Amino acid sequence: MKKYTVINTPVHNIDGIAKITGRAKYTFDITLPRMLHGKILRSSYPHAEILNIDTSKAERLKGVKAVLTGKDTLGLKQGIWRRFKELCDEEILARDKVRYIGEPVATVAAIDEDTAEEALDLIEVEYKPLPGVFEPLEAIKEGAPQLHEQAERNINVTRHIEWGDVDDGFQKADYVREDWFRCSSQAHVCMETHCAVADYTPEGKLTVYTSTQSHYYIKVLLAEILGLRENDVRVISRYTGGGFGSKFELDSAQFCSSLLSMKLCQPVKIVLSREEEFTATKRRTPMFYYVRSGVKKDGTFLAKEARVFTEGGAYTAMGATALYLTGFFQSFPYVWPSYRYDGYRVYTNTAPTSAMRGFGAPQATFCAETQIDLIADELGIDPIEIRRKNAMYPGYEVPGQATIQSCGLDQCLDKIDGWIKSRGELPRHRGIGIAAYGFMSGGIFNWFDTPYAFSSAVIQINIDGKVDLFVGSQDMGQGSNTTMAMICAEELGVKFEDIRLHMGDTENCPVDLGAWGSRETLMQGNAVKMAASKAKQQILEFATAKLSPNIVYDLDIKDGWIHLIARPERGLSYYDVVKEAIRGKEGQPIIARGHYTPHRKGMISPAYSFGVQAVEADVDPETGKITLKNCVTAHDCGQVINPLGVKGQLEGAMAMAAGYGFTEDLPMDEGKILNPNLVDYMLLRATEMPETEVMEVETYEPEGPFGAKEAGEGLTNPTAGALSNAVFHATGISIKNLPITPEKVFNALKEKKKK
Amino acid sequence: MKKYTVINTPVHNIDGIAKITGRAKYTFDITLPRMLHGKILRSSYPHAEILNIDTSKAERLKGVKAVLTGKDTLGLKQGIWRRFKELCDEEILARDKVRYIGEPVATVAAIDEDTAEEALDLIEVEYKPLPGVFEPLEAIKEGAPQLHEQAERNINVTRHIEWGDVDDGFQKADYVREDWFRCSSQAHVCMETHCAVADYTPEGKLTVYTSTQSHYYIKVLLAEILGLRENDVRVISRYTGGGFGSKFELDSAQFCSSLLSMKLCQPVKIVLSREEEFTATKRRTPMFYYVRSGVKKDGTFLAKEARVFTEGGAYTAMGATALYLTGFFQSFPYVWPSYRYDGYRVYTNTAPTSAMRGFGAPQATFCAETQIDLIADELGIDPIEIRRKNAMYPGYEVPGQATIQSCGLDQCLDKIDGWIKSRGELPRHRGIGIAAYGFMSGGIFNWFDTPYAFSSAVIQINIDGKVDLFVGSQDMGQGSNTTMAMICAEELGVKFEDIRLHMGDTENCPVDLGAWGSRETLMQGNAVKMAASKAKQQILEFATAKLSPNIVYDLDIKDGWIHLIARPERGLSYYDVVKEAIRGKEGQPIIARGHYTPHRKGMISPAYSFGVQAVEADVDPETGKITLKNCVTAHDCGQVINPLGVKGQLEGAMAMAAGYGFTEDLPMDEGKILNPNLVDYMLLRATEMPETEVMEVETYEPEGPFGAKEAGEGLTNPTAGALSNAVFHATGISIKNLPITPEKVFNALKEKKKK
Repeated sequence: MKKYTVINTPVHNIDGIAKITGRAKYTFDITLPRMLHGKILRSSYPHAEILNIDTSKAERLKGVKAVLTGKDTLGLKQGIWRRFKELCDEEILARDKVRYIGEPVATVAAIDEDTAEEALDLIEVEYKPLPGVFEPLEAIKEGAPQLHEQAERNINVTRHIEWGDVDDGFQKADYVREDWFRCSSQAHVCMETHCAVADYTPEGKLTVYTSTQSHYYIKVLLAEILGLRENDVRVISRYTGGGFGSKFELDSAQFCSSLLSMKLCQPVKIVLSREEEFTATKRRTPMFYYVRSGVKKDGTFLAKEARVFTEGGAYTAMGATALYLTGFFQSFPYVWPSYRYDGYRVYTNTAPTSAMRGFGAPQATFCAETQIDLIADELGIDPIEIRRKNAMYPGYEVPGQATIQSCGLDQCLDKIDGWIKSRGELPRHRGIGIAAYGFMSGGIFNWFDTPYAFSSAVIQINIDGKVDLFVGSQDMGQGSNTTMAMICAEELGVKFEDIRLHMGDTENCPVDLGAWGSRETLMQGNAVKMAASKAKQQILEFATAKLSPNIVYDLDIKDGWIHLIARPERGLSYYDVVKEAIRGKEGQPIIARGHYTPHRKGMISPAYSFGVQAVEADVDPETGKITLKNCVTAHDCGQVINPLGVKGQLEGAMAMAAGYGFTEDLPMDEGKILNPNLVDYMLLRATEMPETEVMEVETYEPEGPFGAKEAGEGLTNPTAGALSNAVFHATGISIKNLPITPEKVFNALKEKKKK
Repeated sequence: MKKYTVINTPVHNIDGIAKITGRAKYTFDITLPRMLHGKILRSSYPHAEILNIDTSKAERLKGVKAVLTGKDTLGLKQGIWRRFKELCDEEILARDKVRYIGEPVATVAAIDEDTAEEALDLIEVEYKPLPGVFEPLEAIKEGAPQLHEQAERNINVTRHIEWGDVDDGFQKADYVREDWFRCSSQAHVCMETHCAVADYTPEGKLTVYTSTQSHYYIKVLLAEILGLRENDVRVISRYTGGGFGSKFELDSAQFCSSLLSMKLCQPVKIVLSREEEFTATKRRTPMFYYVRSGVKKDGTFLAKEARVFTEGGAYTAMGATALYLTGFFQSFPYVWPSYRYDGYRVYTNTAPTSAMRGFGAPQATFCAETQIDLIADELGIDPIEIRRKNAMYPGYEVPGQATIQSCGLDQCLDKIDGWIKSRGELPRHRGIGIAAYGFMSGGIFNWFDTPYAFSSAVIQINIDGKVDLFVGSQDMGQGSNTTMAMICAEELGVKFEDIRLHMGDTENCPVDLGAWGSRETLMQGNAVKMAASKAKQQILEFATAKLSPNIVYDLDIKDGWIHLIARPERGLSYYDVVKEAIRGKEGQPIIARGHYTPHRKGMISPAYSFGVQAVEADVDPETGKITLKNCVTAHDCGQVINPLGVKGQLEGAMAMAAGYGFTEDLPMDEGKILNPNLVDYMLLRATEMPETEVMEVETYEPEGPFGAKEAGEGLTNPTAGALSNAVFHATGISIKNLPITPEKVFNALKEKKKK
């Protein structure tokens, strides 16, 4: 018998047909009877006191149902940091002060969008403008305008990581190199903008349809800020049109629509415009990185020191986690005998920066991998070799931080080495750059202070053998529903088609923390596997009575066939046994519950993916234009569950990461974003995508379901660094300031010629 | 401490606010994207062969999407009798033969209702008319037209019940009386007509929104007749606008909309018109009853013999059960030492007759109670006394049929006796008639052949102490949701407001057989109580660790307070313990499941309600017009759960039962119903309702949750008999032919004067 019947076969997404036929109902598509439309008035000042808000004219406009301001809220500062209340610093509807352009100050519900929009113009806000500060290195200076009373020198959070004797390491180093890097911001640009339909009823129940990565978080956060009990709030999010880290915090659409609906006892829909999405939602954290490394002349790493100042924007958001993770991943995926990291997150009068695919790691990886190639070049060592020499390996412990169990980094280096060699001699002005990377499989620490398990799943097997699988995870397009159904089918031994998956509704689905930090495959997957295993056990008890093996563990189910493992031809139909089992259980369907909470795996994550990416690019010496040719990735995500899914993730990540590397940015003038639209914000288009290829390196991750771990988010980490290295190898210039635009390349080439 | 904190307090319906604010979404209100509208072409012949159906013209009409006939079905005969396939005799879409006016022969889906209606006129059906037969006493004759090949003399089902030595009983009787009765038909007249929105998708999944009393039955029946797997069908029925027995069989709206949707992969909505509702859905069974009773001169019952010929209409439907129950309830609620019953259900070319509130018992009770008053009158015995002498009592066993546990009939007779005496001397032409009755609390026999428990419930307790209660029962307006939430709150010891109830969706709710035969309070109630009790036990385990009683059973929860039963002031907050319990359970919410399947309680039901009703009425001797003055009911439904609910049920039942007694009927001409509209079909209006009063006689039913049993359906049984007795006592005439119209009274009075 084959090892797996479902796992590692290419499967189309379980909700693919619903999506391609247009039946999938996104929050955009939700319409309820008596539904009103809401809009949000936003600050046009980067920093100002609110002296007065006069809503009377707006209220008198025909068709306007309600105009609410911060005074109509409970005045609570919210945030996802339920265990660290001091980090909850955002009111959503500002009461006394605005701190960035785009911060909500009032919200309107009206009979249609146009009326609501018109009403916004009639709200009179009296501001007292305050001096603003926009760059972290300015904001941290003594005497700079201060955003929050409690944050002297605008320091929001600091982070220190250290192991080994760093000073001694540098002492012993043959070669020390230091560089400054600037990592730019990036917008998530989900196809579905932030939106919500809130429906509060006189019974005191609030239902919110919304586009989110975590219906559980939103339910709990809404209940808290609105003064409701958790389970008087229901969040429904059957389909989410992209998240990438932007949709697991409470947002203005969710909060304002709920507030309006509670006031009016009518449903209220708020959909952010594309411009609001760019200017007034959270974004990737810009970072100013100082990195110093000391190595032996044979390339052995000895000591590393990093300092970062991150542009926090006006509020904490998930930025505190990004600050920790960037520090951890700055050392990754290498064995650094000593390492010291100091991170400072600094408040600025800009839109808050927060989680985005990679969560601080793409910035760190860009700096680290760029510097490694510069070191290798100086020492005359092959880029593959210097990485191989220092690569993490199975069983390695990052002191005080992490336990590495599976690690296929070495095999990945081999594969990429082989591919580079197969390319032979490159034409002029072309280079291949590589970057090694890794990523977490979900976070360990419970800053949300949930009392529930991190992931849970419920399985119910019905009389016809069909399996209801209830998961709390959120499929935002990444394919976790498909992954969960595959894990369930494999563990239970039934067909993929026998699984009916239920998700996206806090009323029927068990708690899961949501889709962020690459949690789902490992954490929700483990919960699903546990539930399936318990359900299988119940079925096998009945089969044991018929087949009389020595013990129940002599039996297994594969593809609907319950059989003796030693003699697979002897068996019974799963469908028949299910029928008898349900009769035997007094007519109760077979039900089982599984759960997972990580423990004893360090501070970061229960498991880590690894990989090496090679980017081949042409650089036009006349214009500085970069053309991507190939992007090849050797990837260790443990046991692949769905090869098609991994490929989809790779291509998506590549588009996003290459955009981060050389086209996307959010330039500002005094806190005002200058390109808040899809014309000026330059996403990579399909025609600009290079050929991509993924070479799987299979390892077995003991902590993951069937040995699986993260696949998808980590793929966003290497590309900017690999691209910068490709440019370096093609031209001899190194750009340390993202994005690597033609202009920067052109100027650097001009500069180089001068020398 | 009070015995109960929730039970027996008047509670408004849990979904009352949603209903009165118009937010409750009935199937009527469902609209889906791309939804089409369906209509059904129905036979205009009572009996005919279908030679040919030409749909080509209809198909060519602009806006028509599909026209389907019996040829487009799998050709299966369906019915609810899954354990007795020979009783499944209805195709829904007739292929070869039609057997009643209104039988579906084709169905159309179009872009709107008008187009669909127009298309019906373009379908050309070539019929070969056959002779019809419309009355059971005609249909049973040799040589009458035969409806079904296998049913000689049109006998569909027969039923025999017998105990004791009947012939010997009559031998010993001092007085023997025999009467013939005719019990008329009655329409359910739900405010929401039969309707369904079917939505089949290319993944092979069918979702049907429908107005039903049992989403589980409809799911399974649809799957069978459409050739799908059970769990590829999802039935959603969050609100049902009345059922009364008409909505637990598969209907033409459900079947045709599903068939069309499967053909088109588009949603299709079918809503029956009020006229279709009257002519082409099922109805109460007309019965021709022969009843012979032998008694001692002191009124002691000795022997009874009954024969009934029921008008079955064209198909079996639930008529076989009505045939059994009418026979059983003909002897009820009395001790008859010997009894013999023969029932014949006879096919006729009329719309099928089936279940309706009372399910055969109102007919039986009318005949039995009318005859008892005639006997009492002849023997000079008070109507209360003759009933008291022969009343069932706690612990009585109906030989081979039923075990009576609780029985408050005697107390009911006392209460009514007292009320009658309080009325003093009545004016001329006024009479008080009484009728004793009883009813079942759900059926025992598994003719549906479900492998599941008859009722199941799931409870989940969340971190904020709110309780999710998932039930399979269907609230069609009778208030079962409120009852279940009350049972759950009481058993768990929390507030009613802490319960969040989920129902009406096969995807999330456990299996329950549905709302019919007065099942829910006892069966679903027991399942809810078991689930709550198991959940409570889990909480008490944690409380035990803190409070250290001798054993966990020394603790209880009431109103959110976990306490030592012996010292109620010593305790802990339920809300606090829940939080700790969930932490202790690895972050799993507290979950428990309960179920109930009746066993070892005879053939009929696990428990029986009892009561006596008195109707006071004026009869105008000039016109025969009857005016209801008072209707007083002494009622034993065991422990009352919700007094407001019982009162609501009483008033509803009274309106329906009085209508059956003296205004409602479905007269026909050659199988054609003559009054299929709300002008000619005479429902009792609010202004015609008498004063009603209910006097509760509380007993404790050991088989019911908190001692509760049936309340509501049984209340439909006594009124026709009590009314006929009131007319008898006011005028001296006895009308044995329902309904007791002014015309019949007038004619009988004229006849009497002549004598």
